[in-house]
Amino acid sequence: MNDTREDGFLGCRLTIAQPVRGYRAGADAVMLAAACPARPGESALELGCGAGVALICLGARVPGLRLAGLELQPGYAALARRNVAANGVDADILEGDLARMPAALRDRSFDHVIANPPYFRGGSVAPDPGRGTARHEATPLAGWIAAGLRRLRPGGWLTMIQRAERLGEMLAALTPSAGAITILPVAARTGAEAGRVILTARKGSRSPMRLLSPFVMHAKPSHSGHGEDLTGPADAVLRQGAALNLRDR
Amino acid sequence: MNDTREDGFLGCRLTIAQPVRGYRAGADAVMLAAACPARPGESALELGCGAGVALICLGARVPGLRLAGLELQPGYAALARRNVAANGVDADILEGDLARMPAALRDRSFDHVIANPPYFRGGSVAPDPGRGTARHEATPLAGWIAAGLRRLRPGGWLTMIQRAERLGEMLAALTPSAGAITILPVAARTGAEAGRVILTARKGSRSPMRLLSPFVMHAKPSHSGHGEDLTGPADAVLRQGAALNLRDR
Repeated sequence: MNDTREDGFLGCRLTIAQPVRGYRAGADAVMLAAACPARPGESALELGCGAGVALICLGARVPGLRLAGLELQPGYAALARRNVAANGVDADILEGDLARMPAALRDRSFDHVIANPPYFRGGSVAPDPGRGTARHEATPLAGWIAAGLRRLRPGGWLTMIQRAERLGEMLAALTPSAGAITILPVAARTGAEAGRVILTARKGSRSPMRLLSPFVMHAKPSHSGHGEDLTGPADAVLRQGAALNLRDR
Repeated sequence: MNDTREDGFLGCRLTIAQPVRGYRAGADAVMLAAACPARPGESALELGCGAGVALICLGARVPGLRLAGLELQPGYAALARRNVAANGVDADILEGDLARMPAALRDRSFDHVIANPPYFRGGSVAPDPGRGTARHEATPLAGWIAAGLRRLRPGGWLTMIQRAERLGEMLAALTPSAGAITILPVAARTGAEAGRVILTARKGSRSPMRLLSPFVMHAKPSHSGHGEDLTGPADAVLRQGAALNLRDR
Protein backbone atom coordinates (compact mmCIF):
# COMPACT_ATOMS: atom_id res chain seq x y z
CA MET A 1 0.00 0.00 0.00
CA ASN A 2 2.33 2.70 -1.31
CA ASP A 3 -0.07 5.46 -2.25
CA THR A 4 -1.57 6.85 0.91
CA ARG A 5 -2.70 10.24 2.02
CA GLU A 6 -3.20 11.71 5.47
CA ASP A 7 -6.82 12.34 6.47
CA GLY A 8 -7.75 14.45 9.51
CA PHE A 9 -10.34 13.15 11.97
CA LEU A 10 -12.04 14.64 15.04
CA GLY A 11 -11.27 18.18 13.99
CA CYS A 12 -7.75 17.13 12.95
CA ARG A 13 -6.83 15.93 16.43
CA LEU A 14 -6.05 12.69 14.61
CA THR A 15 -4.16 12.23 11.36
CA ILE A 16 -4.66 8.87 9.76
CA ALA A 17 -3.03 7.53 6.58
CA GLN A 18 -5.44 5.91 4.16
CA PRO A 19 -4.98 4.62 0.62
CA VAL A 20 -5.44 7.19 -2.12
CA ARG A 21 -7.16 4.54 -4.20
CA GLY A 22 -9.23 2.01 -2.31
CA TYR A 23 -11.48 2.09 0.72
CA ARG A 24 -11.21 5.10 2.99
CA ALA A 25 -13.11 5.20 6.26
CA GLY A 26 -15.03 8.35 7.04
CA ALA A 27 -17.90 9.56 9.18
CA ASP A 28 -19.34 6.07 9.68
CA ALA A 29 -16.18 4.82 11.42
CA VAL A 30 -16.13 7.90 13.67
CA MET A 31 -19.81 7.41 14.57
CA LEU A 32 -19.18 3.74 15.32
CA ALA A 33 -16.38 4.60 17.74
CA ALA A 34 -18.50 7.32 19.36
CA ALA A 35 -21.36 4.87 19.99
CA CYS A 36 -19.24 2.20 21.72
CA PRO A 37 -20.05 2.46 25.46
CA ALA A 38 -16.55 1.42 26.56
CA ARG A 39 -15.23 2.75 29.89
CA PRO A 40 -11.62 3.26 30.91
CA GLY A 41 -9.81 -0.01 31.57
CA GLU A 42 -12.16 -2.17 29.50
CA SER A 43 -11.23 -4.18 26.41
CA ALA A 44 -12.54 -3.73 22.89
CA LEU A 45 -12.07 -5.63 19.63
CA GLU A 46 -12.85 -4.29 16.17
CA LEU A 47 -13.72 -6.79 13.47
CA GLY A 48 -12.48 -5.54 10.11
CA CYS A 49 -10.52 -2.58 11.42
CA GLY A 50 -9.24 -1.41 8.03
CA ALA A 51 -6.68 1.38 8.45
CA GLY A 52 -7.70 1.74 12.11
CA VAL A 53 -9.88 4.86 12.06
CA ALA A 54 -12.57 3.60 14.49
CA LEU A 55 -10.03 2.04 16.87
CA ILE A 56 -8.01 5.22 16.97
CA CYS A 57 -11.09 7.42 17.56
CA LEU A 58 -12.19 5.09 20.36
CA GLY A 59 -8.74 5.05 21.93
CA ALA A 60 -8.52 8.84 21.68
CA ARG A 61 -11.86 9.31 23.47
CA VAL A 62 -11.62 6.66 26.21
CA PRO A 63 -8.32 6.37 28.05
CA GLY A 64 -6.79 3.09 29.18
CA LEU A 65 -8.63 0.72 26.85
CA ARG A 66 -7.10 -2.58 25.83
CA LEU A 67 -7.73 -2.45 22.08
CA ALA A 68 -7.44 -5.10 19.39
CA GLY A 69 -8.23 -5.03 15.69
CA LEU A 70 -8.68 -7.87 13.24
CA GLU A 71 -8.14 -7.14 9.55
CA LEU A 72 -8.31 -9.51 6.60
CA GLN A 73 -6.25 -7.48 4.15
CA PRO A 74 -2.49 -7.35 4.90
CA GLY A 75 -2.01 -3.88 3.42
CA TYR A 76 -4.71 -2.37 5.63
CA ALA A 77 -3.44 -4.24 8.70
CA ALA A 78 0.04 -2.78 8.14
CA LEU A 79 -1.47 0.68 7.69
CA ALA A 80 -3.50 0.26 10.89
CA ARG A 81 -0.34 -0.65 12.84
CA ARG A 82 1.37 2.46 11.53
CA ASN A 83 -1.68 4.66 12.23
CA VAL A 84 -2.31 3.53 15.80
CA ALA A 85 1.35 4.11 16.66
CA ALA A 86 1.43 7.51 14.97
CA ASN A 87 -1.62 8.60 16.97
CA GLY A 88 -0.32 7.35 20.29
CA VAL A 89 -2.98 4.63 20.59
CA ASP A 90 -2.02 1.21 21.91
CA ALA A 91 -3.80 -1.52 19.93
CA ASP A 92 -2.94 -5.05 18.81
CA ILE A 93 -3.59 -5.33 15.10
CA LEU A 94 -4.01 -8.92 13.94
CA GLU A 95 -4.14 -10.04 10.35
CA GLY A 96 -6.74 -12.72 9.77
CA ASP A 97 -10.22 -13.78 8.71
CA LEU A 98 -13.10 -13.40 11.16
CA ALA A 99 -14.66 -16.51 9.65
CA ARG A 100 -11.58 -18.45 10.80
CA MET A 101 -10.82 -16.55 13.99
CA PRO A 102 -7.05 -16.47 14.69
CA ALA A 103 -5.99 -18.52 17.73
CA ALA A 104 -4.68 -15.37 19.44
CA LEU A 105 -8.26 -14.07 19.55
CA ARG A 106 -10.13 -17.36 19.99
CA ASP A 107 -8.84 -17.58 23.55
CA ARG A 108 -9.84 -14.05 24.48
CA SER A 109 -13.12 -12.43 25.35
CA PHE A 110 -13.81 -8.70 25.28
CA ASP A 111 -16.04 -6.20 27.03
CA HIS A 112 -16.85 -4.65 23.65
CA VAL A 113 -16.83 -5.62 20.00
CA ILE A 114 -17.30 -2.99 17.32
CA ALA A 115 -17.74 -3.48 13.57
CA ASN A 116 -18.57 -1.56 10.43
CA PRO A 117 -19.15 -4.58 8.16
CA PRO A 118 -19.26 -4.34 4.37
CA TYR A 119 -22.44 -2.62 3.25
CA PHE A 120 -23.08 -4.68 0.15
CA ARG A 121 -23.92 -8.34 -0.35
CA GLY A 122 -22.02 -10.77 -2.53
CA GLY A 123 -18.91 -10.46 -4.65
CA SER A 124 -17.27 -7.18 -5.53
CA VAL A 125 -17.19 -5.63 -8.95
CA ALA A 126 -14.99 -2.75 -7.76
CA PRO A 127 -11.85 -2.15 -9.86
CA ASP A 128 -9.79 -1.83 -6.67
CA PRO A 129 -9.69 -5.17 -4.83
CA GLY A 130 -8.95 -3.58 -1.44
CA ARG A 131 -11.95 -1.30 -1.69
CA GLY A 132 -14.09 -4.16 -2.99
CA THR A 133 -13.23 -6.35 0.01
CA ALA A 134 -14.06 -3.54 2.39
CA ARG A 135 -17.42 -2.80 0.77
CA HIS A 136 -18.64 -6.20 -0.45
CA GLU A 137 -18.98 -9.02 2.02
CA ALA A 138 -17.12 -12.31 1.76
CA THR A 139 -18.51 -13.41 5.11
CA PRO A 140 -22.28 -12.68 5.31
CA LEU A 141 -23.43 -10.03 7.78
CA ALA A 142 -24.88 -12.74 10.06
CA GLY A 143 -21.38 -14.28 10.23
CA TRP A 144 -19.88 -10.98 11.36
CA ILE A 145 -22.46 -10.75 14.13
CA ALA A 146 -21.99 -14.38 15.22
CA ALA A 147 -18.21 -13.92 15.31
CA GLY A 148 -18.59 -10.72 17.30
CA LEU A 149 -20.95 -12.30 19.84
CA ARG A 150 -18.55 -15.23 20.33
CA ARG A 151 -15.75 -12.83 21.25
CA LEU A 152 -17.83 -11.00 23.88
CA ARG A 153 -17.88 -11.87 27.55
CA PRO A 154 -21.40 -12.48 28.95
CA GLY A 155 -22.96 -9.05 29.36
CA GLY A 156 -20.52 -7.50 26.87
CA TRP A 157 -21.65 -5.02 24.23
CA LEU A 158 -21.68 -5.29 20.44
CA THR A 159 -21.78 -1.97 18.55
CA MET A 160 -22.26 -1.81 14.79
CA ILE A 161 -23.05 0.60 11.98
CA GLN A 162 -24.71 -0.62 8.81
CA ARG A 163 -27.10 0.43 6.06
CA ALA A 164 -30.63 0.85 7.45
CA GLU A 165 -32.14 -1.55 4.93
CA ARG A 166 -30.20 -4.43 6.52
CA LEU A 167 -31.74 -3.92 9.97
CA GLY A 168 -33.83 -7.09 9.65
CA GLU A 169 -30.76 -9.24 9.00
CA MET A 170 -29.01 -7.72 11.99
CA LEU A 171 -31.93 -8.27 14.37
CA ALA A 172 -32.33 -11.87 13.19
CA ALA A 173 -28.62 -12.60 13.71
CA LEU A 174 -28.70 -11.11 17.21
CA THR A 175 -31.68 -13.24 18.27
CA PRO A 176 -31.73 -14.94 20.75
CA SER A 177 -28.09 -14.59 21.89
CA ALA A 178 -28.25 -10.87 22.57
CA GLY A 179 -30.82 -8.41 23.91
CA ALA A 180 -31.11 -4.81 25.05
CA ILE A 181 -30.88 -3.96 21.36
CA THR A 182 -30.88 -0.21 20.83
CA ILE A 183 -31.29 1.17 17.33
CA LEU A 184 -30.25 4.70 16.45
CA PRO A 185 -31.42 5.62 12.94
CA VAL A 186 -29.00 8.01 11.21
CA ALA A 187 -30.63 10.36 8.71
CA ALA A 188 -29.00 12.90 6.41
CA ARG A 189 -31.63 15.48 7.25
CA THR A 190 -34.68 16.02 9.44
CA GLY A 191 -37.63 14.18 7.93
CA ALA A 192 -35.46 11.97 5.72
CA GLU A 193 -35.53 8.20 5.98
CA ALA A 194 -32.57 6.60 7.72
CA GLY A 195 -29.57 5.79 5.53
CA ARG A 196 -27.67 4.07 8.32
CA VAL A 197 -28.46 2.51 11.66
CA ILE A 198 -26.15 2.34 14.64
CA LEU A 199 -27.02 -0.61 16.82
CA THR A 200 -25.85 -1.73 20.24
CA ALA A 201 -26.75 -5.07 21.80
CA ARG A 202 -25.80 -6.86 24.98
CA LYS A 203 -24.77 -10.51 24.98
CA GLY A 204 -27.15 -12.67 27.02
CA SER A 205 -29.57 -9.86 27.85
CA ARG A 206 -33.35 -10.32 27.70
CA SER A 207 -34.11 -6.61 27.83
CA PRO A 208 -36.48 -5.31 25.14
CA MET A 209 -35.47 -3.53 21.97
CA ARG A 210 -35.56 0.28 21.71
CA LEU A 211 -35.94 2.34 18.56
CA LEU A 212 -34.51 5.80 19.22
CA SER A 213 -35.25 9.13 17.63
CA PRO A 214 -33.00 9.66 14.59
CA PHE A 215 -29.55 11.23 14.69
CA VAL A 216 -29.58 13.94 12.02
CA MET A 217 -26.34 14.75 10.22
CA HIS A 218 -27.00 17.91 8.21
CA ALA A 219 -28.89 21.07 9.06
CA LYS A 220 -29.51 22.49 5.59
CA PRO A 221 -32.32 21.19 3.39
CA SER A 222 -30.01 20.03 0.58
CA HIS A 223 -26.41 18.95 0.48
CA SER A 224 -24.05 21.88 0.32
CA GLY A 225 -20.93 19.96 -0.60
CA HIS A 226 -18.36 19.90 2.17
CA GLY A 227 -20.30 19.02 5.31
CA GLU A 228 -20.04 22.48 6.82
CA ASP A 229 -23.77 22.30 7.57
CA LEU A 230 -23.40 19.63 10.25
CA THR A 231 -26.01 19.72 13.01
CA GLY A 232 -24.76 20.50 16.51
CA PRO A 233 -24.84 16.85 17.63
CA ALA A 234 -23.10 15.68 14.43
CA ASP A 235 -20.43 18.35 14.83
CA ALA A 236 -19.89 17.27 18.44
CA VAL A 237 -19.30 13.67 17.39
CA LEU A 238 -17.39 14.18 14.14
CA ARG A 239 -15.33 17.29 14.96
CA GLN A 240 -15.08 17.36 18.73
CA GLY A 241 -14.83 13.64 19.48
CA ALA A 242 -17.93 13.50 21.71
CA ALA A 243 -19.50 10.20 22.72
CA LEU A 244 -22.77 9.13 21.14
CA ASN A 245 -24.50 7.67 24.15
CA LEU A 246 -27.34 5.39 23.08
CA ARG A 247 -28.25 4.32 26.63
CA ASP A 248 -29.29 7.74 27.89
CA ARG A 249 -31.18 9.01 24.87
CA MET B 1 -71.82 -7.16 25.63
CA ASN B 2 -74.50 -5.04 27.24
CA ASP B 3 -72.50 -2.13 28.61
CA THR B 4 -71.24 -0.10 25.68
CA ARG B 5 -70.64 3.54 25.09
CA GLU B 6 -70.40 5.57 21.90
CA ASP B 7 -66.92 6.84 21.05
CA GLY B 8 -66.36 9.46 18.38
CA PHE B 9 -63.62 8.94 15.75
CA LEU B 10 -62.20 11.08 12.94
CA GLY B 11 -63.45 14.28 14.51
CA CYS B 12 -66.78 12.61 15.35
CA ARG B 13 -67.56 11.82 11.72
CA LEU B 14 -67.86 8.26 13.03
CA THR B 15 -69.62 7.07 16.17
CA ILE B 16 -68.62 3.61 17.27
CA ALA B 17 -70.00 1.60 20.19
CA GLN B 18 -67.34 0.01 22.38
CA PRO B 19 -67.55 -1.85 25.69
CA VAL B 20 -67.45 0.35 28.78
CA ARG B 21 -65.31 -2.28 30.47
CA GLY B 22 -62.95 -4.18 28.24
CA TYR B 23 -60.76 -3.34 25.27
CA ARG B 24 -61.48 -0.09 23.48
CA ALA B 25 -59.69 0.73 20.28
CA GLY B 26 -58.23 4.22 19.98
CA ALA B 27 -55.60 6.13 18.06
CA ASP B 28 -53.69 2.98 17.07
CA ALA B 29 -56.65 1.56 15.16
CA VAL B 30 -57.17 4.88 13.37
CA MET B 31 -53.46 5.07 12.44
CA LEU B 32 -53.57 1.50 11.15
CA ALA B 33 -56.49 2.29 8.87
CA ALA B 34 -54.81 5.49 7.67
CA ALA B 35 -51.62 3.60 6.72
CA CYS B 36 -53.34 0.94 4.60
CA PRO B 37 -52.63 1.87 0.96
CA ALA B 38 -55.96 0.50 -0.34
CA ARG B 39 -57.48 2.08 -3.42
CA PRO B 40 -61.16 2.21 -4.41
CA GLY B 41 -62.49 -1.16 -5.56
CA GLU B 42 -59.82 -3.23 -3.81
CA SER B 43 -60.40 -5.79 -1.07
CA ALA B 44 -59.14 -5.68 2.51
CA LEU B 45 -59.28 -8.08 5.45
CA GLU B 46 -58.67 -7.15 9.07
CA LEU B 47 -57.41 -9.87 11.39
CA GLY B 48 -58.76 -9.31 14.91
CA CYS B 49 -61.17 -6.52 13.99
CA GLY B 50 -62.55 -6.04 17.53
CA ALA B 51 -65.48 -3.62 17.49
CA GLY B 52 -64.59 -2.59 13.93
CA VAL B 53 -62.88 0.77 14.45
CA ALA B 54 -60.08 0.29 11.89
CA LEU B 55 -62.38 -1.28 9.29
CA ILE B 56 -64.86 1.57 9.64
CA CYS B 57 -62.13 4.24 9.39
CA LEU B 58 -60.74 2.53 6.29
CA GLY B 59 -64.18 2.22 4.70
CA ALA B 60 -64.93 5.86 5.50
CA ARG B 61 -61.71 7.07 3.83
CA VAL B 62 -61.59 4.85 0.74
CA PRO B 63 -64.84 4.35 -1.18
CA GLY B 64 -65.89 1.08 -2.79
CA LEU B 65 -63.70 -1.30 -0.80
CA ARG B 66 -64.72 -4.91 -0.29
CA LEU B 67 -64.06 -5.24 3.45
CA ALA B 68 -63.95 -8.26 5.73
CA GLY B 69 -63.10 -8.61 9.41
CA LEU B 70 -62.22 -11.69 11.42
CA GLU B 71 -62.83 -11.58 15.17
CA LEU B 72 -62.28 -14.33 17.75
CA GLN B 73 -64.58 -12.98 20.44
CA PRO B 74 -68.34 -13.29 19.69
CA GLY B 75 -69.29 -10.17 21.66
CA TYR B 76 -66.87 -7.99 19.71
CA ALA B 77 -67.91 -9.56 16.40
CA ALA B 78 -71.55 -8.72 17.13
CA LEU B 79 -70.55 -5.18 18.09
CA ALA B 80 -68.52 -4.83 14.89
CA ARG B 81 -71.54 -5.89 12.79
CA ARG B 82 -73.67 -3.28 14.52
CA ASN B 83 -70.99 -0.59 14.17
CA VAL B 84 -70.24 -1.08 10.49
CA ALA B 85 -73.96 -0.92 9.69
CA ALA B 86 -74.51 2.15 11.87
CA ASN B 87 -71.66 3.95 10.08
CA GLY B 88 -72.82 3.01 6.58
CA VAL B 89 -69.80 0.80 5.91
CA ASP B 90 -70.24 -2.50 4.09
CA ALA B 91 -68.07 -5.22 5.67
CA ASP B 92 -68.41 -8.96 6.26
CA ILE B 93 -67.67 -9.68 9.90
CA LEU B 94 -66.71 -13.30 10.53
CA GLU B 95 -66.37 -14.90 13.90
CA GLY B 96 -63.40 -17.24 14.13
CA ASP B 97 -59.79 -17.91 15.05
CA LEU B 98 -57.03 -16.75 12.70
CA ALA B 99 -54.99 -19.80 13.76
CA ARG B 100 -57.80 -21.98 12.30
CA MET B 101 -58.86 -19.77 9.43
CA PRO B 102 -62.60 -20.13 8.71
CA ALA B 103 -63.40 -21.84 5.40
CA ALA B 104 -65.18 -18.70 4.15
CA LEU B 105 -61.82 -16.89 4.26
CA ARG B 106 -59.47 -19.76 3.37
CA ASP B 107 -60.77 -19.66 -0.20
CA ARG B 108 -60.31 -15.91 -0.60
CA SER B 109 -57.30 -13.73 -1.18
CA PHE B 110 -57.18 -10.00 -0.57
CA ASP B 111 -55.36 -6.97 -1.93
CA HIS B 112 -54.74 -5.82 1.66
CA VAL B 113 -54.57 -7.32 5.12
CA ILE B 114 -54.47 -5.06 8.18
CA ALA B 115 -53.92 -6.02 11.80
CA ASN B 116 -53.33 -4.49 15.21
CA PRO B 117 -52.29 -7.70 17.02
CA PRO B 118 -52.17 -7.99 20.81
CA TYR B 119 -49.26 -6.00 22.19
CA PHE B 120 -48.28 -8.38 24.97
CA ARG B 121 -46.92 -11.91 24.95
CA GLY B 122 -48.41 -14.89 26.72
CA GLY B 123 -51.53 -15.35 28.80
CA SER B 124 -53.61 -12.50 30.14
CA VAL B 125 -53.89 -11.49 33.76
CA ALA B 126 -56.50 -8.83 32.99
CA PRO B 127 -59.65 -9.01 35.11
CA ASP B 128 -61.78 -8.52 31.98
CA PRO B 129 -61.39 -11.55 29.67
CA GLY B 130 -62.41 -9.61 26.55
CA ARG B 131 -59.77 -6.97 27.17
CA GLY B 132 -57.22 -9.65 28.05
CA THR B 133 -57.77 -11.48 24.77
CA ALA B 134 -57.39 -8.25 22.83
CA ARG B 135 -54.16 -7.27 24.55
CA HIS B 136 -52.44 -10.60 25.29
CA GLU B 137 -51.73 -12.94 22.45
CA ALA B 138 -53.10 -16.47 22.22
CA THR B 139 -51.58 -16.85 18.73
CA PRO B 140 -47.96 -15.55 18.68
CA LEU B 141 -47.24 -12.43 16.63
CA ALA B 142 -45.46 -14.55 14.00
CA GLY B 143 -48.69 -16.54 13.59
CA TRP B 144 -50.66 -13.37 12.93
CA ILE B 145 -48.18 -12.36 10.24
CA ALA B 146 -48.13 -15.82 8.64
CA ALA B 147 -51.94 -15.91 8.59
CA GLY B 148 -52.04 -12.43 7.08
CA LEU B 149 -49.52 -13.27 4.35
CA ARG B 150 -51.48 -16.41 3.41
CA ARG B 151 -54.62 -14.33 2.83
CA LEU B 152 -52.85 -11.86 0.52
CA ARG B 153 -52.71 -12.15 -3.24
CA PRO B 154 -49.16 -12.05 -4.67
CA GLY B 155 -48.13 -8.40 -4.55
CA GLY B 156 -50.74 -7.61 -1.90
CA TRP B 157 -49.94 -5.41 1.09
CA LEU B 158 -49.84 -6.22 4.79
CA THR B 159 -50.20 -3.22 7.14
CA MET B 160 -49.69 -3.56 10.89
CA ILE B 161 -49.22 -1.49 14.01
CA GLN B 162 -47.36 -2.89 17.01
CA ARG B 163 -45.14 -1.91 19.91
CA ALA B 164 -41.72 -0.79 18.64
CA GLU B 165 -39.86 -3.29 20.78
CA ARG B 166 -41.37 -6.16 18.77
CA LEU B 167 -39.96 -4.93 15.46
CA GLY B 168 -37.43 -7.77 15.31
CA GLU B 169 -40.13 -10.43 15.63
CA MET B 170 -42.12 -8.76 12.87
CA LEU B 171 -39.18 -8.53 10.46
CA ALA B 172 -38.25 -12.16 11.12
CA ALA B 173 -41.83 -13.33 10.45
CA LEU B 174 -42.01 -11.35 7.20
CA THR B 175 -38.77 -12.84 5.87
CA PRO B 176 -38.48 -14.13 3.18
CA SER B 177 -42.15 -14.18 2.06
CA ALA B 178 -42.53 -10.41 1.92
CA GLY B 179 -40.37 -7.43 1.00
CA ALA B 180 -40.63 -3.69 0.40
CA ILE B 181 -40.94 -3.44 4.17
CA THR B 182 -41.48 0.17 5.23
CA ILE B 183 -41.24 1.05 8.91
CA LEU B 184 -42.77 4.23 10.29
CA PRO B 185 -41.71 4.78 13.91
CA VAL B 186 -44.42 6.52 15.94
CA ALA B 187 -43.12 8.69 18.77
CA ALA B 188 -45.09 10.60 21.40
CA ARG B 189 -42.86 13.64 20.99
CA THR B 190 -39.95 14.93 18.91
CA GLY B 191 -36.76 13.33 20.17
CA ALA B 192 -38.55 10.52 22.02
CA GLU B 193 -37.94 6.91 21.21
CA ALA B 194 -40.65 5.15 19.23
CA GLY B 195 -43.47 3.60 21.24
CA ARG B 196 -45.14 2.05 18.19
CA VAL B 197 -44.16 1.12 14.68
CA ILE B 198 -46.45 1.06 11.69
CA LEU B 199 -45.19 -1.37 9.10
CA THR B 200 -46.23 -2.15 5.55
CA ALA B 201 -44.86 -5.06 3.53
CA ARG B 202 -45.58 -6.48 0.12
CA LYS B 203 -46.06 -10.20 -0.42
CA GLY B 204 -43.42 -11.69 -2.73
CA SER B 205 -41.44 -8.44 -3.13
CA ARG B 206 -37.65 -8.37 -3.02
CA SER B 207 -37.41 -4.61 -2.58
CA PRO B 208 -35.23 -3.39 0.30
CA MET B 209 -36.45 -2.27 3.68
CA ARG B 210 -36.92 1.44 4.49
CA LEU B 211 -36.80 3.06 7.91
CA LEU B 212 -38.74 6.32 7.74
CA SER B 213 -38.48 9.47 9.80
CA PRO B 214 -40.76 9.21 12.87
CA PHE B 215 -44.38 10.26 12.96
CA VAL B 216 -44.72 12.51 16.00
CA MET B 217 -48.05 12.58 17.87
CA HIS B 218 -47.81 15.48 20.33
CA ALA B 219 -46.40 18.98 19.96
CA LYS B 220 -45.94 19.95 23.62
CA PRO B 221 -42.94 18.75 25.59
CA SER B 222 -45.00 16.87 28.20
CA HIS B 223 -48.41 15.26 28.12
CA SER B 224 -51.17 17.75 28.70
CA GLY B 225 -53.98 15.31 29.30
CA HIS B 226 -56.55 15.26 26.51
CA GLY B 227 -54.57 15.14 23.31
CA GLU B 228 -55.35 18.72 22.34
CA ASP B 229 -51.63 19.20 21.59
CA LEU B 230 -51.65 16.92 18.53
CA THR B 231 -49.12 17.82 15.83
CA GLY B 232 -50.50 18.90 12.48
CA PRO B 233 -49.91 15.51 10.84
CA ALA B 234 -51.42 13.63 13.83
CA ASP B 235 -54.46 15.91 13.80
CA ALA B 236 -54.88 15.31 10.06
CA VAL B 237 -54.92 11.54 10.55
CA LEU B 238 -56.85 11.28 13.82
CA ARG B 239 -59.34 14.14 13.46
CA GLN B 240 -59.65 14.73 9.74
CA GLY B 241 -59.34 11.16 8.45
CA ALA B 242 -56.31 11.80 6.25
CA ALA B 243 -54.28 8.95 4.78
CA LEU B 244 -50.86 8.16 6.23
CA ASN B 245 -48.98 7.42 3.04
CA LEU B 246 -45.81 5.45 3.80
CA ARG B 247 -44.81 5.06 0.14
CA ASP B 248 -44.29 8.74 -0.59
CA ARG B 249 -42.56 9.81 2.59
